[in-house]
Amino acid sequence: MAFDALTDRDAPLNEAALAQLFTEARTRNAWTDRPVSEALLRKLYDLTKFGPTALNNTPARFVFVTSPEAKARLVPLMAEGNQAKTAQAPVTVIIGLDLDFPEHLPTLFPHMPGAKDWFADEAMRHESAFRNASLQGGYMILAARALGLDVGPMSGFDPAAVKAEFFPNSNVEPNFIMNIGYGTDENLFPRSPRLSFEDASQIL
Amino acid sequence: MAFDALTDRDAPLNEAALAQLFTEARTRNAWTDRPVSEALLRKLYDLTKFGPTALNNTPARFVFVTSPEAKARLVPLMAEGNQAKTAQAPVTVIIGLDLDFPEHLPTLFPHMPGAKDWFADEAMRHESAFRNASLQGGYMILAARALGLDVGPMSGFDPAAVKAEFFPNSNVEPNFIMNIGYGTDENLFPRSPRLSFEDASQIL
Repeated sequence: MAFDALTDRDAPLNEAALAQLFTEARTRNAWTDRPVSEALLRKLYDLTKFGPTALNNTPARFVFVTSPEAKARLVPLMAEGNQAKTAQAPVTVIIGLDLDFPEHLPTLFPHMPGAKDWFADEAMRHESAFRNASLQGGYMILAARALGLDVGPMSGFDPAAVKAEFFPNSNVEPNFIMNIGYGTDENLFPRSPRLSFEDASQIL
Repeated sequence: MAFDALTDRDAPLNEAALAQLFTEARTRNAWTDRPVSEALLRKLYDLTKFGPTALNNTPARFVFVTSPEAKARLVPLMAEGNQAKTAQAPVTVIIGLDLDFPEHLPTLFPHMPGAKDWFADEAMRHESAFRNASLQGGYMILAARALGLDVGPMSGFDPAAVKAEFFPNSNVEPNFIMNIGYGTDENLFPRSPRLSFEDASQIL
């Protein structure tokens, strides 16, 4: 579908879609046993990958933990309060950031053949990887909801242990970890307050 | 609308919505003069704010630069290649991260009254602010598209100068900057390649 050919390219999505993505979606802490197919995980990636990143650098890497064997490697590395739900969810994705992302820039950003060399500075490379892999994590959260899935993102885990267990022999580091599936209302927090527009924003 | 009461909570959005959000949306480098109302910016915040963050810490802060006077303060601080489009866009939002976010946790995460004290370590506080403000940046990108707006995110600017000009006397630092409006096809890059599922992901 050619987006620019849509007659309503500037129209908002309907309220049900905005509710599914934002206003009524909730972080889930318990999961039904309904499985998530490999085809759906591939579709999830195929939406996530189109979200914008700096120079199209797309530094996020995704390890979808689905088998009992792989879950058994991950669950003990989660914070105690995150273990039961991670064991229960049909899929848990480890979202990593690849510090070697500049190696892909000649392919990913062909407009500027020299872009790879802009990231020689290690601190700057880490900052760009962290920012853009986090953006991509946000895209995956909303892509999952757009596909009818629930998510439960978590930063409570042992990063060094997850790095050693799932990203040995690479420059990929874990960023955050997220359960994916079809959630239940069990252990659902009441919706927490949000900052008002005036507390978080200004218009100049 | 009660999300759990939706009969199709687990249904994907339709293809037109997925195209608007992900598959056909493009980073815009030129803008029509169609304005973006304050009401629409408030709606944009009211979607963005519901995206999940760690402990609901929502560290992103948003400065919507709309007036000629405010644009004149920002444009010279952008990288040269970002100046013309930033001057042209009806709105440019500076997305900052507030290192004082723990002060709001007693309000934002009432379930755990002690959560504020978990961020005494400065490096850990910065890491959480950076990760979660970036996630919120991702939510705002997709919320804007969900509202029929186009975006053009940028990390090419002078961070120290933007900090001094727009966030003096606070612990807010700029994260990235994004044009918002109704884009044109002028200066549109060809769609760049994306990493294959196999290059970026694995299923265990």
